Amino acid sequence: MRIGIYGGTFNPVHIGHLHVADVAASALHLDRVIFVPTGNSYMKSDVDMASGWCRLMMINFACQNDDRFFVSKVDLQREGPTYTIDTMRDMKALYPQDKLFFIIGADSLEQLPKWKNIEELIKEVSFIVVGRKGIKMEIPKPIKQMKDYDIFIIRDAIKLDVSSSEIREAIKRGKSCKYLLPLNVYEYILDHKLYKDWKLLERMTKGV
Amino acid sequence: MRIGIYGGTFNPVHIGHLHVADVAASALHLDRVIFVPTGNSYMKSDVDMASGWCRLMMINFACQNDDRFFVSKVDLQREGPTYTIDTMRDMKALYPQDKLFFIIGADSLEQLPKWKNIEELIKEVSFIVVGRKGIKMEIPKPIKQMKDYDIFIIRDAIKLDVSSSEIREAIKRGKSCKYLLPLNVYEYILDHKLYKDWKLLERMTKGV
Repeated sequence: MRIGIYGGTFNPVHIGHLHVADVAASALHLDRVIFVPTGNSYMKSDVDMASGWCRLMMINFACQNDDRFFVSKVDLQREGPTYTIDTMRDMKALYPQDKLFFIIGADSLEQLPKWKNIEELIKEVSFIVVGRKGIKMEIPKPIKQMKDYDIFIIRDAIKLDVSSSEIREAIKRGKSCKYLLPLNVYEYILDHKLYKDWKLLERMTKGV
Repeated sequence: MRIGIYGGTFNPVHIGHLHVADVAASALHLDRVIFVPTGNSYMKSDVDMASGWCRLMMINFACQNDDRFFVSKVDLQREGPTYTIDTMRDMKALYPQDKLFFIIGADSLEQLPKWKNIEELIKEVSFIVVGRKGIKMEIPKPIKQMKDYDIFIIRDAIKLDVSSSEIREAIKRGKSCKYLLPLNVYEYILDHKLYKDWKLLERMTKGV
């Protein structure tokens, strides 16, 4: 199988994320895209950061209508900050026979040289960069010097500029964002007063 | 009731339209938004222009999860080109007791003075302009001189730049656009080979 790994906070997951996963899956003929929400044990949970459990649930809902999309809690189960090298080691162990890709946005490409154990990481996996117009998409020099890198840049996708922070802000202020999220994710957020009610959120942090 | 009338080709309807309708409904406390697809008897149907029947069906699907959203075929049933003044006369006749608003995008605001019978139109209905960042949103001088105008400009909505033409292009070329449309609309387009198969489309043009 060809598997795309898509890491992020997904706080909350929205149609922009689903579109990116769809673009990557179509362009690189992936059999699966696995969403991997970052751990948050090291971060102070607050009204702006939903618990791992909630973020996992929302991705679960969001993936319900797509046979290619899955979710994994490897990063949520690991102690401490999330590094992609650890995510990929865990995924390698789970899928030893499969070809793994790591999906990143155009904004992350420039930062790539600074990632933990990037030299090892780049040998282990291919990267898929989903482009956005107006953002420079060049492979950074330090990466080019590693030679063995395998980076696919998708430049011609339709861009969909939605951000989780905009959505959290909208929820907080009662502004419209219903159609920026899958319906079941939107309803989950309202039902559980996510990004609004700090006390309720704290109670839900115990899950993962 | 406070009713928003939202005209357009909706070829096809997409999440950008639904978001605009949601923004307008929330900001102006509308009880309903009625989508009114333009007639197309005067236009040559081709692979890029789905029949009125198809566009109506797609809006029907798109409105399924929102109690506030409806669709009307007044413009599809009228002969000749669609003018908003006719749409509004028809809607007035259907909803004589209700307060009517007409929803337009920021791009249309500048064109408003050129609309057919604009002086009559502006007396009859209020306009809701849903803003987009980076687009000038000033009430044009000729409108200001009419004095009695009633135009609400929503400037702080989250923008969602999706276009029907981009989606048609994506469908034609097999590029990703699944998450830019409601799922049932996306599936309808694929099932009926809309924007791809000209012959099938021609057969479906008879409906409305």
